[in-house]
Amino acid sequence: MSMTFFTPGPAQLYPTFETHLQTFVNNQLGSISHRSQQYRDLHKFTVDQLRILLNVPDTHAIMFLGSASEAWERIIFSCVELESFHLVNGSFSKKFCEYTTALNKYAHTMEKPMGSGFTAAEITVPEYAELICTTHNETSSGVQMPVSEIHKLKQKNPDKLIAVDIVSSAPYPDLDYSLIDTAFFSVQKAFGLPAGLGVWIVSEKCLHKAEYIRNQYSIGAHNDLPTLWKNALNNETPSTPNVMGIYLLGKIAEDFNKIGVKTIRKETEQKAALIYKFLEKTSGFSPFVKEKPNRSQTVIVTDTEINSADIIKKVKEKGMVIGSGYGSFKATQLRIANFPATSTEQVEKLLSELGKL
Amino acid sequence: MSMTFFTPGPAQLYPTFETHLQTFVNNQLGSISHRSQQYRDLHKFTVDQLRILLNVPDTHAIMFLGSASEAWERIIFSCVELESFHLVNGSFSKKFCEYTTALNKYAHTMEKPMGSGFTAAEITVPEYAELICTTHNETSSGVQMPVSEIHKLKQKNPDKLIAVDIVSSAPYPDLDYSLIDTAFFSVQKAFGLPAGLGVWIVSEKCLHKAEYIRNQYSIGAHNDLPTLWKNALNNETPSTPNVMGIYLLGKIAEDFNKIGVKTIRKETEQKAALIYKFLEKTSGFSPFVKEKPNRSQTVIVTDTEINSADIIKKVKEKGMVIGSGYGSFKATQLRIANFPATSTEQVEKLLSELGKL
Repeated sequence: MSMTFFTPGPAQLYPTFETHLQTFVNNQLGSISHRSQQYRDLHKFTVDQLRILLNVPDTHAIMFLGSASEAWERIIFSCVELESFHLVNGSFSKKFCEYTTALNKYAHTMEKPMGSGFTAAEITVPEYAELICTTHNETSSGVQMPVSEIHKLKQKNPDKLIAVDIVSSAPYPDLDYSLIDTAFFSVQKAFGLPAGLGVWIVSEKCLHKAEYIRNQYSIGAHNDLPTLWKNALNNETPSTPNVMGIYLLGKIAEDFNKIGVKTIRKETEQKAALIYKFLEKTSGFSPFVKEKPNRSQTVIVTDTEINSADIIKKVKEKGMVIGSGYGSFKATQLRIANFPATSTEQVEKLLSELGKL
Repeated sequence: MSMTFFTPGPAQLYPTFETHLQTFVNNQLGSISHRSQQYRDLHKFTVDQLRILLNVPDTHAIMFLGSASEAWERIIFSCVELESFHLVNGSFSKKFCEYTTALNKYAHTMEKPMGSGFTAAEITVPEYAELICTTHNETSSGVQMPVSEIHKLKQKNPDKLIAVDIVSSAPYPDLDYSLIDTAFFSVQKAFGLPAGLGVWIVSEKCLHKAEYIRNQYSIGAHNDLPTLWKNALNNETPSTPNVMGIYLLGKIAEDFNKIGVKTIRKETEQKAALIYKFLEKTSGFSPFVKEKPNRSQTVIVTDTEINSADIIKKVKEKGMVIGSGYGSFKATQLRIANFPATSTEQVEKLLSELGKL
């Protein structure tokens, strides 16, 4: 039976994935040299499509890593000489913070419980923190930080660099890159692709910071920012990249651009509204995140009255896969991804089955 | 026109690649959770097949990274507190050495010109070097270090850790892992897969060294060895891996095991002998590596009398792609990959066309 995946990543593959994969295979693109013009054209196509989709200005490079987690490390290496500041309200924002500690830098934190969000007004960034680390969408708890709050936070702290984790929300958040120094995502979430590729959007300011830090501390050896940047200017990567992933990402981004990112964002909000409305009115369910502006539009988390494993099992029998709660919430919550790969009809079918439980 | 790639990586895809890819797609494996039993079974299958193929004992873990270049960094982080020692005779052994410097550790080197090889007898490892870094197959120059010399080098220096770059030769070298502390390769070479996955074979000794170093220095944050190891015990990875790459690698390794690694190694040697014999007897060509024991069996480099770009162009018209020389040898050399994906018949066809020039 063919299943529909509402899991928060790896997730449902985008409907055009198979066609693009077949083109990749037919054109033998898995064998081309990563130092050839053919590769550079492929690379440039993907960067150009992402630049249009996410409205990334020329002050920022778009680069490829093995995963979004690798971006955490490269950002700390490149943007933090001594101290960073992390907004922590879930497992992934916590991991970003732990990466800082593992690199022997000092991580200031402002912590809130799972399910809570942050507003710019309540945040005081410590004086010596060089980088503010924010998570637009906490995949573990289904909390989003509104883009307007992220922008305000930077406007309040113009001398600090700001990093935004958009792993499980891009291309939904409409970030203003004149305010955002760096952001990153992976392809197995809203882009509906198999995992194995991270995308790092990074400004010249971060590059200059990395070059400055390099005079005194190591900024890493593999995919260090100045080397990545130099290669990106030539539409290349320092080592052999995931060419298949980069190709497929370019084609999906092109598909998104044909639909229009505004339409994709609107459809995301409409589907999210359907799901939250269902959870609010249906007994046995209630949205985990209480404050509406903090409710994620792409990863929706609900408390469940009965053991969520039973719900997952019953829904699976109907051909749909939903995610369990994260960590200690495994048995008492569900996580429902709302990415472009799942249509309104598929969401309605899911809610219909959940309603019959 | 369908082309046959004799390029040193990305290279010709293995003939069974498309079938395995189709199975991956049909079974929706691109959507499964990397924390599910289904994923853990897939992961274990690949590790088990590689363990059989490369004869890796249980003292060593087999782990997955974004690329083999990432392994360079993780090895230096994990195995070198202060000083390493590098045998450098080409561009890739040099890069390994540069990674050490970039991580602010001291790199001792023994350097030889491109085309030359090393014997254990001539090597004196500096007293304070903690790790010996060797390259079994220098992809840039077509020099191999015989496995027997690598083993002897460790036997002469039992207190040092030894790392072996088998990026463009695995599964050809029959390493004795009771002597080898760590080795690594990527999948876009002899395994005939699209790029985007590195494999790191690493011993408990390296793990203990990493745990020791961690008390005083950073050993990195992303894919640090103790975290990778802990996850590997559960057939998982710390962050979402390239599931497609891991699946395909397991299936190709299984195919290799069905043929038998001895047969694959023998066929590799037979095809290499055909190529070297042709280069020696044909005017206009001569093998770059003069010492026969140092001649790579998997990446064969030849000097050319005429500009190699002209040869590449003419061969391409006949449906075959060969590699140019590396770096400053670009115009005066050819690199011909000899991986399992290209058959004896395909090699004969290539030599026949080269003979007509």
